Amino acid sequence: MRDAYHEELDSISDSLVEMARLVGSAIGRATTAMLDSDLKLAENVIEADQRVDELQHELEARAIALLARQQPVATDLRIVVTSLRMSADLERSGDLAQHVAKLARLRYPDRAVPSDLHATILEMGQLAQRLMAKAAEVIITKDVDLALQLEQDDDEMDLLHRTLFQHLMDDRWKHGIETAVDVTLLGRYYERFADHAVSVAKRVVYLVTGEHADELQADAQPEIQAVPGAESA
Amino acid sequence: MRDAYHEELDSISDSLVEMARLVGSAIGRATTAMLDSDLKLAENVIEADQRVDELQHELEARAIALLARQQPVATDLRIVVTSLRMSADLERSGDLAQHVAKLARLRYPDRAVPSDLHATILEMGQLAQRLMAKAAEVIITKDVDLALQLEQDDDEMDLLHRTLFQHLMDDRWKHGIETAVDVTLLGRYYERFADHAVSVAKRVVYLVTGEHADELQADAQPEIQAVPGAESA
Repeated sequence: MRDAYHEELDSISDSLVEMARLVGSAIGRATTAMLDSDLKLAENVIEADQRVDELQHELEARAIALLARQQPVATDLRIVVTSLRMSADLERSGDLAQHVAKLARLRYPDRAVPSDLHATILEMGQLAQRLMAKAAEVIITKDVDLALQLEQDDDEMDLLHRTLFQHLMDDRWKHGIETAVDVTLLGRYYERFADHAVSVAKRVVYLVTGEHADELQADAQPEIQAVPGAESA
Repeated sequence: MRDAYHEELDSISDSLVEMARLVGSAIGRATTAMLDSDLKLAENVIEADQRVDELQHELEARAIALLARQQPVATDLRIVVTSLRMSADLERSGDLAQHVAKLARLRYPDRAVPSDLHATILEMGQLAQRLMAKAAEVIITKDVDLALQLEQDDDEMDLLHRTLFQHLMDDRWKHGIETAVDVTLLGRYYERFADHAVSVAKRVVYLVTGEHADELQADAQPEIQAVPGAESA
């Protein structure tokens, strides 16, 4: 009975890794679709999110069945509950990748991102994908040092977000309001995506080290402080 | 033993209601702080979010202790797991109210919202507060009809969001890019806040009726479709 139980725990972990890989790929492809104004690729990303949602529902059903059947306590119980939270983070990340793809589709055949912001958005997309790849690795290896790296990567995302805002607030901005709105939303999508990747890694750290959730919470993100002139939180 | 158990379940439900009331009040006060450029009120909202976070942590600890000690199955198990999800929705709503307050603080003594958008933002803030008050009532009464009302209210929020975008995209927009960015983010905060209130209500419906989470999922919100000219999802 215990063996079947640990097999089931492993399979939940496998599903989390698969979800992380799917959403990591999705944010990369959505970014490409937007920068290249590739409608097919955008639609492909939008449709593919369904698989992420399915995986989450399957995972939740299995986790709840596991709680009911095996009634785990202590660490095992925390693993199951934490898995539910990680799957929520990953499902939401998938939605955010889908939002990027929907923006690409909405502006097609135009490009949502003006050329002078192309490099910054590309970096944000790549960084988001890398963060999620590391989050997947953290789930597999439970490597606390790697998990802590994600916070540094997230600082990099904040810097990129600030760069984006500097462009927006520059008096020489010549792309009009619609593009300003698009770029504002895009910045927020990438930043939230990164937050969820960091959150996944922190939840693993919590399981491994038992550190308090207060210190590990990644949900409150300082997007307002990314605006030039913002006071710190 | 069973009695203590149901008392504990009731107290988890009480905490959810208290969280919903706190974040409902927070979004109302944050809106006032922003429209009146009231720095004190903004700071009060920012600080008060700590209590919501504390309530969430307490609730999670109690829910996990309950799972470990009482090992509920079937409906009772679902109630506990669903409570964890609702508390995550409510905690996140608190963050969003805090974001609104931080924007008020950031722009003080200026106003983030230009006068011609004052009425729309006021309506969004009031609607958000009303949605959360109804979500609290749904937790208490488990009234499915009331829960379904929240979806209609959410349609109203989408309409307000669309109005906001119409202002932004209007050629006569004269408030510059910074205000456009502020208003874009504000619109998103209110919309997400409303999504979380709807999500809480839907989770109660799921517990009562056993309907599939697929049909009840409120996480994927169509903010991009709120942009004029957007194709429907």
